[in-house]
Amino acid sequence: MIINIVTLFPEFFEPLKLSIAGRAAAAGLVEYRVLNLRDFAEGKYQAVDDYPYGGGAGMVLKPDPFFAAVESIGPDTSTGKVLLMSARGARFRHQDAVRLSLEPVLTILCGHYKDIDQRVVDGLGAEEVSLGDFIVSGGEIPALAVVDAVVRLLPGAISDHESASTDSFYEGMLSPPSYTRPAEFMGMQVPPVLLSGDHRKISEWRREQSERFTRERRPDLLESLEEA
Amino acid sequence: MIINIVTLFPEFFEPLKLSIAGRAAAAGLVEYRVLNLRDFAEGKYQAVDDYPYGGGAGMVLKPDPFFAAVESIGPDTSTGKVLLMSARGARFRHQDAVRLSLEPVLTILCGHYKDIDQRVVDGLGAEEVSLGDFIVSGGEIPALAVVDAVVRLLPGAISDHESASTDSFYEGMLSPPSYTRPAEFMGMQVPPVLLSGDHRKISEWRREQSERFTRERRPDLLESLEEA
Repeated sequence: MIINIVTLFPEFFEPLKLSIAGRAAAAGLVEYRVLNLRDFAEGKYQAVDDYPYGGGAGMVLKPDPFFAAVESIGPDTSTGKVLLMSARGARFRHQDAVRLSLEPVLTILCGHYKDIDQRVVDGLGAEEVSLGDFIVSGGEIPALAVVDAVVRLLPGAISDHESASTDSFYEGMLSPPSYTRPAEFMGMQVPPVLLSGDHRKISEWRREQSERFTRERRPDLLESLEEA
Repeated sequence: MIINIVTLFPEFFEPLKLSIAGRAAAAGLVEYRVLNLRDFAEGKYQAVDDYPYGGGAGMVLKPDPFFAAVESIGPDTSTGKVLLMSARGARFRHQDAVRLSLEPVLTILCGHYKDIDQRVVDGLGAEEVSLGDFIVSGGEIPALAVVDAVVRLLPGAISDHESASTDSFYEGMLSPPSYTRPAEFMGMQVPPVLLSGDHRKISEWRREQSERFTRERRPDLLESLEEA
């Protein structure tokens, strides 16, 4: 897989050298190509932003540097699926990571400042992706999250040891709590059932905990399960 | 504000030197203190993880290094509000960033691998925070997102020029699209209303666009507005 990233802040992507994302690249499963948007801006000052038409505060990233950056990657097949990190997008979920992990090429555009010219989305057919209902300074950190979520699904990217982290959602609910040694720590005991060796009871306990946490914290997940 | 971060991968936090998070630190508005969890592990091999009680795949981060790391920060007041990045948490939203930005000290614990011993949450009174329903390799990238979302709200962290990015949500809906020069680009026109100079019409158009995008992509936001 090739992942192209277009950004005003290439240094944000240094963490892709670490942990699973870094090991996947070292193993040849994925190649990250980070393009600096400013290299594709024209004029003496290489301006990448300008005032919004119709007024209002904040600056808007101009369309032309994005098109030039994407064009530099090559024809359509080299660009692959184009994503734009945007608060206006649909919310990114695990099933999106699964779908995107099947693409041979992803090109991720990162906005910064107030917004990006809408013609970038329309002209490049970009899929707008949002991490959630909060505001960050740019698309870079959300792009890191998407890349990590996608790359760890590539065959061979994670060891069996790590793959259990896909347990984060347990049959559509929050996962039950985990405990490891010591059995007593600062007066806090591991729930005795987990030490019982009774697998049926352990399984029941985990299911109950999972339901309890989900009911308390994410009742929306239970509603989705009931609708399904 | 002081932000302590406890992690197995300190290098993930290099991006805090950049953009708004970096400028806020340079201006003395915030200080980032990144602690390596492994420095607080005991024994010859400084093991930070162990097998889960009750069986199951994956490794669980042990409680003691987290307690030792937090203790090293100092008494309660120095630790401030403790967060744990966790898929089991409540979903992080803009109002959480606002609330956390008022704390003098935040201590953010990052999990990695399958899970973290539940006694870390219980014993340290950690608030569990999740970015959304997707799986990443660890809490580091979600922690970056939380830090960025919080720090940009500190008084003086962003210029007026940038502050308009809080427009990402427009009266509880997705924001309308933006356009900047040129008025025509690759055959794509800026919507004529934005060039009209008629502020009432521009405002109406933006409202319509905002409603259309929200209806198409985030009907859940409209439901929340109706309930309110």
